[in-house]
Amino acid sequence: MALIVQKYGGSSVGNLDRIHHVAKKIMSAKSAGHEIVVVVSAMYGETDRLIQLANALTQSPEPREFDILIATGEQVSMALLSMALNANNCPARSFTGPQIGIQTDDIHTKARILEVDTTVIKRELKEGRVVIVAGFQGINERGDVTTLGRGGSDTTAVAIAAALKADECQIYTDVDGVYTTDPHLIPEARLLPQISFEEMLEMASLGAKVLQMRSVELASKHNMPIRVLSTFSDGPGTLVTFEDKIMHKRLVSGIAFSREEAILSLSGVPRKLGTEGLILGKVSEAHIEIDMIAQNATAQDTVDFTFTVHRKEYPKALKIVEDLAIQLGANTVKTNSRVAKLSLVGIGMRSHTGVASTMFRSLGEAGINIQMITTSEIKISVIVDETHLEQGVRAVHSAFELDKLPHVPEKMSIE
Amino acid sequence: MALIVQKYGGSSVGNLDRIHHVAKKIMSAKSAGHEIVVVVSAMYGETDRLIQLANALTQSPEPREFDILIATGEQVSMALLSMALNANNCPARSFTGPQIGIQTDDIHTKARILEVDTTVIKRELKEGRVVIVAGFQGINERGDVTTLGRGGSDTTAVAIAAALKADECQIYTDVDGVYTTDPHLIPEARLLPQISFEEMLEMASLGAKVLQMRSVELASKHNMPIRVLSTFSDGPGTLVTFEDKIMHKRLVSGIAFSREEAILSLSGVPRKLGTEGLILGKVSEAHIEIDMIAQNATAQDTVDFTFTVHRKEYPKALKIVEDLAIQLGANTVKTNSRVAKLSLVGIGMRSHTGVASTMFRSLGEAGINIQMITTSEIKISVIVDETHLEQGVRAVHSAFELDKLPHVPEKMSIE
Repeated sequence: MALIVQKYGGSSVGNLDRIHHVAKKIMSAKSAGHEIVVVVSAMYGETDRLIQLANALTQSPEPREFDILIATGEQVSMALLSMALNANNCPARSFTGPQIGIQTDDIHTKARILEVDTTVIKRELKEGRVVIVAGFQGINERGDVTTLGRGGSDTTAVAIAAALKADECQIYTDVDGVYTTDPHLIPEARLLPQISFEEMLEMASLGAKVLQMRSVELASKHNMPIRVLSTFSDGPGTLVTFEDKIMHKRLVSGIAFSREEAILSLSGVPRKLGTEGLILGKVSEAHIEIDMIAQNATAQDTVDFTFTVHRKEYPKALKIVEDLAIQLGANTVKTNSRVAKLSLVGIGMRSHTGVASTMFRSLGEAGINIQMITTSEIKISVIVDETHLEQGVRAVHSAFELDKLPHVPEKMSIE
Repeated sequence: MALIVQKYGGSSVGNLDRIHHVAKKIMSAKSAGHEIVVVVSAMYGETDRLIQLANALTQSPEPREFDILIATGEQVSMALLSMALNANNCPARSFTGPQIGIQTDDIHTKARILEVDTTVIKRELKEGRVVIVAGFQGINERGDVTTLGRGGSDTTAVAIAAALKADECQIYTDVDGVYTTDPHLIPEARLLPQISFEEMLEMASLGAKVLQMRSVELASKHNMPIRVLSTFSDGPGTLVTFEDKIMHKRLVSGIAFSREEAILSLSGVPRKLGTEGLILGKVSEAHIEIDMIAQNATAQDTVDFTFTVHRKEYPKALKIVEDLAIQLGANTVKTNSRVAKLSLVGIGMRSHTGVASTMFRSLGEAGINIQMITTSEIKISVIVDETHLEQGVRAVHSAFELDKLPHVPEKMSIE
């Protein structure tokens, strides 16, 4: 018997048939002898409907009132799910965030959870009920309803699981789990049975479609394993857990990528203390978020400085770089607004050398020019021409045999 | 300066334009220097939508979950109204029933209010805000959300007004107030500037379209004057208040009526102790609600027993009466399923004789046969043939000069 927190997203409870389907999944876990706490999102489209209502009423809705308005979305789905369970003789009770006592700070529309009171949940579990909790919402010190921002239900689930010291936090969604890379781009992509928290965070561009990053951080902080799995198909999904719990350790886990990148380089900038700070300062003053940064010092007296931004910021960034080139006396400005980022992620590369060289060689053999490289402990990112992205991902994916990953159907840890 | 509780019904906040309109009405009362507490219903149609959702999911929704589901209707409208006020620089805050502390018993879907905590309302009023409260809902001892049943928002408003010792409880609706009779039937009907609680309760068939009867009882018990007035037109409406506050006392106030009646008579029932109890017992065992009851004892040894029921219960009641006639040895059974009830209501008739004779004479002069009569202290009800209803109401309305009622535009008591 285990204590499991399950979270079902908006598409999982998108209509009444799906709510019945989710009820059946919950009942089957209950029949297996587990204690179940369920966190639900609003029915698909409902939060947007409420936001549109508020925006149609006034241009800048009062945040306190906005929160108590959109919190009704989860209140509806939790009540319906509880009804569906009770109608099938599975005792259940639903609770709003405030009713459970999910204490947050008072930053309306993007509150952070400070504390979860487990009294009510424990009482209900003891009485043999399934406990259903509205995701995405809490209550501040003043007694006002707050919401956690998009994807907040994942965070609710992890926070409750951590507070209860649950055995596992299961995030049910409309994908099977986390893949070695996007299977829409590379059909050979394989489902990862396990991945570490660090890798999951580094895979953000892939992972963000599956899990809200704040919830991964929270889970990592509280050592709470998360299992990502599909509401609509059976399968073990992907277990996101600590590094030392990972079985069948691999050198690399996956390849993340993003298309909408732009690269800007200043070369031959006369070497001078504080130049880098000056460049970055100008860019961030314009509220442009910088992604990758690299600096080479090949020459004696000059440096080359390169960074990337989201493509939509490119025109603004270009203007700044051109001004800076004059101000700093740089030789040349070289930019490209049609590039993509490709990141290889794996905790295995910490202890193994040669990962970078294998990666670069496979790209080279595919005839792909690398325009920029940055590395962190468990990630190597390169910038390539946008038109080379798919071919590059395929080459690296194959070089590390990610497509040949033996699928080890791991026993679900909760059984 | 007065403390006013205003209640706006579902059609008053039926869409975003109407919510803006209601916000303007609130702001104008606030500008006049009053402290305002507003109780809102769900947007028109929303409660029905939620009920349909629950019923589509399961045949018998769990009442606790049903309540927390439908309570979202008022939570949406209160938040939107508060946003509209804040957007117009009128500080406002909305609160659910549980947030305010509207304590109820735990009879889900038709809970009764036990106590209203005024702490939060008083704090917010003191800080100069308009306080908006979700009608129709409360919280039981266990912390669960309860709802008060259809029309419950009126009760919420009166309960809050009573707890605050407000100066007036204004019920905004889509009619101008209470009329001497239904203006759809008798266009000469006049708006009543004032009516007593007792008359309002006796006028139920008219009044129920305007005010929930439980809220009138509650207002009467707590001596809380209610003003019924229109959201969509200006005018003083009708003040429902205690008898001794009524100015321009009139003999009678109005004529209520209902069409869907059926009458059943047993005549020549041998006189025997407990016969009436036996008859009524059989009828109520069949869950048929009896409206009027009359018994005559014209003969020495037999009695005539007559009662009315709602027309839809007629076939069931007829069967029972026919069985009873045999069992009790009654002479004849006389029934009519096409009758209507006409009730004259007025506190003035307590101290004036001759009201009944004027009423009966006017009906007689109109050639209308009276099939049954019952009286209470301030009401005389007669049963007439359905086809005579309109003519009968017109005759009595005119006999008491209700159509000539001098319209005394009374000063609003809150000004």
